[in-house]
Amino acid sequence: MFVFFTQIVIAQNNYNLGTQGKQNVQLIVNSDFVVTMDEAQPVIKNGAVAIRDGKIVAIDTQDKIKASYRARRTLPGEGMVLMPGLVNGHSHSAMVLFRGLADDLALEDWLQNYIFPAEGKFVDENFVRVGEQLACWEMIRGGTTTFVDMYFEPEVAAEVVDECGLRAMIAPSSIDFPSPGFQGWDDAFASSVNFLKRWKGKSDRIIPALAPHAPYTVSPEHLTQAIRAARHYDVPLTIHLAETQTEVQDVQQRYNATPVQHLENLGFLDPRVFAAHVVWPNESEIALMAKRGVGVIHNPDSNLKLASGFAPIPAMLKAGIKVGLGTDGAASNNVLDMWKAIRLTALIHKGTTLDPTAVPAKTVLRMATLGGAQALGLADKIGAIKTGFQADLIQVHLQEPHLLPLYDVTSHLVYAADAKDVDTVIVNGEVLMHKREMLTVDINKIRREVVSIGEKIKAEFRPSN
Amino acid sequence: MFVFFTQIVIAQNNYNLGTQGKQNVQLIVNSDFVVTMDEAQPVIKNGAVAIRDGKIVAIDTQDKIKASYRARRTLPGEGMVLMPGLVNGHSHSAMVLFRGLADDLALEDWLQNYIFPAEGKFVDENFVRVGEQLACWEMIRGGTTTFVDMYFEPEVAAEVVDECGLRAMIAPSSIDFPSPGFQGWDDAFASSVNFLKRWKGKSDRIIPALAPHAPYTVSPEHLTQAIRAARHYDVPLTIHLAETQTEVQDVQQRYNATPVQHLENLGFLDPRVFAAHVVWPNESEIALMAKRGVGVIHNPDSNLKLASGFAPIPAMLKAGIKVGLGTDGAASNNVLDMWKAIRLTALIHKGTTLDPTAVPAKTVLRMATLGGAQALGLADKIGAIKTGFQADLIQVHLQEPHLLPLYDVTSHLVYAADAKDVDTVIVNGEVLMHKREMLTVDINKIRREVVSIGEKIKAEFRPSN
Repeated sequence: MFVFFTQIVIAQNNYNLGTQGKQNVQLIVNSDFVVTMDEAQPVIKNGAVAIRDGKIVAIDTQDKIKASYRARRTLPGEGMVLMPGLVNGHSHSAMVLFRGLADDLALEDWLQNYIFPAEGKFVDENFVRVGEQLACWEMIRGGTTTFVDMYFEPEVAAEVVDECGLRAMIAPSSIDFPSPGFQGWDDAFASSVNFLKRWKGKSDRIIPALAPHAPYTVSPEHLTQAIRAARHYDVPLTIHLAETQTEVQDVQQRYNATPVQHLENLGFLDPRVFAAHVVWPNESEIALMAKRGVGVIHNPDSNLKLASGFAPIPAMLKAGIKVGLGTDGAASNNVLDMWKAIRLTALIHKGTTLDPTAVPAKTVLRMATLGGAQALGLADKIGAIKTGFQADLIQVHLQEPHLLPLYDVTSHLVYAADAKDVDTVIVNGEVLMHKREMLTVDINKIRREVVSIGEKIKAEFRPSN
Repeated sequence: MFVFFTQIVIAQNNYNLGTQGKQNVQLIVNSDFVVTMDEAQPVIKNGAVAIRDGKIVAIDTQDKIKASYRARRTLPGEGMVLMPGLVNGHSHSAMVLFRGLADDLALEDWLQNYIFPAEGKFVDENFVRVGEQLACWEMIRGGTTTFVDMYFEPEVAAEVVDECGLRAMIAPSSIDFPSPGFQGWDDAFASSVNFLKRWKGKSDRIIPALAPHAPYTVSPEHLTQAIRAARHYDVPLTIHLAETQTEVQDVQQRYNATPVQHLENLGFLDPRVFAAHVVWPNESEIALMAKRGVGVIHNPDSNLKLASGFAPIPAMLKAGIKVGLGTDGAASNNVLDMWKAIRLTALIHKGTTLDPTAVPAKTVLRMATLGGAQALGLADKIGAIKTGFQADLIQVHLQEPHLLPLYDVTSHLVYAADAKDVDTVIVNGEVLMHKREMLTVDINKIRREVVSIGEKIKAEFRPSN
């Protein structure tokens, strides 16, 4: 993305020269509160962050940052909270184009009569390009700065993500039966490996990964092939795991083991693996995931909408599992809105445990940022506001009536804030949205293209609407 | 509210004169879709509503409305859905001033160390005035047009509601122990009765009601006194009921009956009664509430945050109970946002039943509008877009990325829309918000007063923040 690279070049030429004893930086962001996710200094009042070369170089009070740094641009922070950008640990982004196509249906009806036929008929390069653009627009607007995208046409997805300035782990899905563009596992997996060979190390915003679909849709041989490749190329691997009771029964019947245990038996589990859903692990499987350092991405909206169930998050947190949050795809959510996932996570586990102290606000906010980064293996770069970390930051505006008065910033972020309270989004030091104006996305073009594809899908699947 | 009365006077002088064969009306509202909640014509594409004297006089396509009516003002509707305003069936509105003061605490700690002392120290006329103003601002912004307010200082609340143009059922809380301004039941209840005598029939936007607090905080004698007064004065009565397992055990121990059965034994249950929460009814109590025509207000956010549990809404709907939705107070939610309650209701009952067809989108949208109106005994006036009904309407804007593309309007309203997608709010034919601009509320004055009270509360309860 040329705007971004221009900034870097200027930075390399002009920064660090210093005038009047101040260091030059690219950007300073002020805010009434800086919520860092760093245990050493959790919240800084009247704080500021200085950014150079896309990274955080200093975090302190506004007075001290102003005294030490001179910035080409300073963002004001009155009435704002500055926090790490949200990490959406599980999505199928381009599926936003199926948003609201089919709800309130039994899983089989939903999959067999809507989602699979719609994917078979419509998913191609153009679909993924337009869908990914819509998804990126929606995610930037809601303060997501990094997301995991498990879908098809990864080259197209990577291009779109690169253009809009977001950070994404792109993990093309491989499955044992035909999928858009592929006959089955062999060609799908080969294509995934080619994708990661091309992108590994090429960009710090596009992180390639592998994604065998699930233990009930990928054979033990292919699962083994996938984890070996992930280890060989040193990339993360993500998988759907223990999502439904049906899956547990199915895997048990076929392999005489519950899903997590089945993966353990294949030597699959290690810290580069993170699993989406994990709604139905048993106690020993929870202990196993903790022991093997496997990350878990909790997708409460999708798990409830598809009636998969309530994942035992309090038990997983207690066991020390790295737990992040995700939205899943918009066909089963129906939004890529991390704030909804945050609030739902803070609420539902109090209901299932009948304990109002379960999964408190601070824990959930950590899951949505640093916890997700840990699950993805990126916690040395993103998820917190720390010196040396990538400058992936959001400003949340606290002046609307639902955020008044203010006693506790974390409480407001978890229990009261919305996607639309996000004012400014910064990734790698670049401002992608400011005062809710989109700076890297042509929204009118996207809207036109989305409406055009939507009309074709509607004509096929919802002709009466 | 003088602006409003002026409109009425003009209306009476000038309307119905007719020119060019068209009837004069006060307002026409166009929208791409009109979601009526009327079984006879559920959704009208390119629809419009004509309004005269605060009431709906016609609903049809835009072409037909334009051909038959001439309006002093017409609101455009491109990209909009027009639907009935939301009915918030349970709140303690002025408690917005305690929003986020204390979260993630055990119930007793929360009540005894924060809420009760804070109410004892701070709740007075000024607190209720400012809190009610903030609540009305928040509710208008989120498309709530009618709410039930169960709190203190009802005269002040009524004044604020009247000024801002909303519709509210104001039900001052009476309880057997000291509460703000009262020694105990006798003076609290006498004051409630005085309030309803003063307001009964005085305004069609301020509906007085009675609110004995709950079966575990009000004696059988006082409950009997309350229901007799409600029948005598012909007003609705609302009560907290079967909210927690502790309440069920407590009532069982004291009165040898579960809470709903206890009320039945007192001859308390009838169609003018609507109960908030009802998380722990047994099967026979569900049948009993259906038989007696008792309404139920489901408050999923509050029930989960306080770890009360999951109300058996699918069973209640199946039994034919009139079920509406509520936010409860912002001390236990933390927002007066009906959209969050709508989405939560559509999601959680699929999780508890493991049935993705449970509580579908249409059912939830009905609960948030006509269902609530039925529970409150107002379904002949509000909750649907029907000829002769009060013109309580909202326009929801469907152009943000999380609402693209569009296959099904109801799906988007339930699973994807936010409070901030509400563009225009109309109550009794008067526009209270248009293009998100507040027209009847002085937001800067309210914000200043809220911050001032908030600082005093913070100094007392959260000095370190």
